[in-house]
Amino acid sequence: MPLQDHMKLVSVDDHVIEHPEVWRDRLPKSFGDRLPHVVRTTGGESLAGGGELLPERDVWVYDGDIYPQIGLNAVAGKKWEDFGIDPYRFSEMRPGCYDPAERVKDMDTEGVWAQTTFPSLPGFGGRFFLNGSDRELALQCVQAWNDFIIDEWCAAAPERFIPLMILPVWDIERSVAEIGRMAGKGARGISFIENPAAAGLPSWHTGHWDSVFAAAVETELPLCMHFGSSGSMPSVSKDAPFTTAIVLSNTSSMATCVDLLFSPVFHRFPKLQVALSEGGIGWVPWLLERTDHIWQRHRHYNDIDFDTRPSELFRRNIWTCFIDDRHGMGLRESIGIDRITWESDYPHADSNFPHSRKAAAEHFADVPDDETHKIAELNARRLFRFPDNTKGAA
Amino acid sequence: MPLQDHMKLVSVDDHVIEHPEVWRDRLPKSFGDRLPHVVRTTGGESLAGGGELLPERDVWVYDGDIYPQIGLNAVAGKKWEDFGIDPYRFSEMRPGCYDPAERVKDMDTEGVWAQTTFPSLPGFGGRFFLNGSDRELALQCVQAWNDFIIDEWCAAAPERFIPLMILPVWDIERSVAEIGRMAGKGARGISFIENPAAAGLPSWHTGHWDSVFAAAVETELPLCMHFGSSGSMPSVSKDAPFTTAIVLSNTSSMATCVDLLFSPVFHRFPKLQVALSEGGIGWVPWLLERTDHIWQRHRHYNDIDFDTRPSELFRRNIWTCFIDDRHGMGLRESIGIDRITWESDYPHADSNFPHSRKAAAEHFADVPDDETHKIAELNARRLFRFPDNTKGAA
Repeated sequence: MPLQDHMKLVSVDDHVIEHPEVWRDRLPKSFGDRLPHVVRTTGGESLAGGGELLPERDVWVYDGDIYPQIGLNAVAGKKWEDFGIDPYRFSEMRPGCYDPAERVKDMDTEGVWAQTTFPSLPGFGGRFFLNGSDRELALQCVQAWNDFIIDEWCAAAPERFIPLMILPVWDIERSVAEIGRMAGKGARGISFIENPAAAGLPSWHTGHWDSVFAAAVETELPLCMHFGSSGSMPSVSKDAPFTTAIVLSNTSSMATCVDLLFSPVFHRFPKLQVALSEGGIGWVPWLLERTDHIWQRHRHYNDIDFDTRPSELFRRNIWTCFIDDRHGMGLRESIGIDRITWESDYPHADSNFPHSRKAAAEHFADVPDDETHKIAELNARRLFRFPDNTKGAA
Repeated sequence: MPLQDHMKLVSVDDHVIEHPEVWRDRLPKSFGDRLPHVVRTTGGESLAGGGELLPERDVWVYDGDIYPQIGLNAVAGKKWEDFGIDPYRFSEMRPGCYDPAERVKDMDTEGVWAQTTFPSLPGFGGRFFLNGSDRELALQCVQAWNDFIIDEWCAAAPERFIPLMILPVWDIERSVAEIGRMAGKGARGISFIENPAAAGLPSWHTGHWDSVFAAAVETELPLCMHFGSSGSMPSVSKDAPFTTAIVLSNTSSMATCVDLLFSPVFHRFPKLQVALSEGGIGWVPWLLERTDHIWQRHRHYNDIDFDTRPSELFRRNIWTCFIDDRHGMGLRESIGIDRITWESDYPHADSNFPHSRKAAAEHFADVPDDETHKIAELNARRLFRFPDNTKGAA
């Protein structure tokens, strides 16, 4: 009897669509139209990165530049036949995309107990606020998003939402201060950039992030590295169908994984925990065998840890998750049953809404009860200390 | 009794290091120093892509620009402890790297019966000759390399070498003509660019390559797409140890695989055969499940074949290979036993020289005889029609 009724599904990767007033509700009116706000296009507006907009679309404006919504962010509830690059307007989305009370109803419908809160406009890792030149404005926008998540979104149902925070990634001291502030407010994880070097920031090999990692360890907050959060995509033909990049997005998580395993990060911070958000699981045993093999052979002329196999670091510091991955479920022993978590990906196109629990149950059909319980619920609770028993929460 | 004595190891991925006179031996002296030739550096020479050279290194010069040797191309026979980015001189390499008679001796030493002939200076897919502006010189260089492979390298032991050819990739008509010419001379495969778009050429989605693919089908020559042949590397930190890119090189083969499966290529050319050279095998079942899943869900708004599952195309049109991949060997049924081949990778750093047969045998320890024979020998012979029984060869 796998995935029994008493096992609650706890998802480690889900996406909040910010409503239009998130920033204007919280920040001084003196910032005026420089704050992120939503406008309806009339057609022909120019984009910062080139191109023009069609009329009748809701788009974000920040510090004078336009950033279109990406519809695949919010297709929950549509039939596959109706998938597309739209929606282009809030009115075309399910309210569960941007309204936490409606979100909880959708979670009840599909049998998901708890969910995380990845950002949309700010980018999965907060990278968006590297745009613009006013760092004070950007810092306040990051803090406002973090406050919105705790005070508005998660406050609507604290037992049901696992609050993730973002960082002012351009400033280490302020990032450390923000971790402290948000840990105090109840944040349970940090949505971090999967490859800071690809986003124009110092890499994991530099020591630049050491005090951020130290703060994450100190506050017991895992770093959630969602594929795509660095802004780089897998290298395929530019005119390939979008399906190509969707399939290959997991290879970004493989790159994050290996880049980290060969960096000094886990040696300097043995307690740091990293989640490969939406990374998939079926490739893990193959990649670990290959990483150990190359480490064994090539460590002699590379500046990497000589004594610890990368696969040992993986099992100590990295967490994986899946939505649809039958092959991976069959390999769960090799991946590490204590490190596999489940995700719903609501409201993105990979989500099985409103059939998430049914789809998960099919994966667990041949999995022993104790393993099912770990993968469906307990591992995610352990990863995020959710609820935090040390504080006597429910 | 797996890998029995009567089973010959036939490798699908091995590298010829061109000796310094390959081009000067064959092309008119009137080209002078514009032909590829080797010089010893004195130190401080400038590279076309930036940077300076250290003294006492053998480097190639082509049409006025310097292209350093990459030592990892030729480490066969070294201990792992002695691996590095060197060698920097021909005198530091095993003669088997650049001398076909010596190569055969090395193959005998390690128990490999037959091998392919991927290029070194020209790039795996011939991309190198996109450099420079003299297309007539470039065409003659491509043809000279192809002649060298058949007339000099393979002629030294025709039963032991599977000749691969390269194309003048900038010119479709001349590519088609060269395929015809080389098929007549006995070529058995075409070393092609794994992602032409990344190399600045039209993608597989354009129809640009149709007459090349038609010629490949007509002459029954498979396209061998070696990772790295487009010149792009996996996206990792620039300061990551080289091990990181080595591990992730297989993700380039994944990208090639998915980009092709979602392109019109296999629909227009159902008989075209593609080998993912050095691509590995352990990731295949995971990737096929994911590709089918995304196809099922997202084909409605993408311009891709609506009726054929990508995994069906894979099993009809794509070939895989491995060097060290225990995990993959365990998954051979899901990958397709008729489509897995073995490679030695001599003289590159992933090679197990001089223990290739021993390393392969360990993979086959629990594999039934008939499957071992297919994977070790018969599949590669079928892929390359080697020897070509229709011509009565041995």
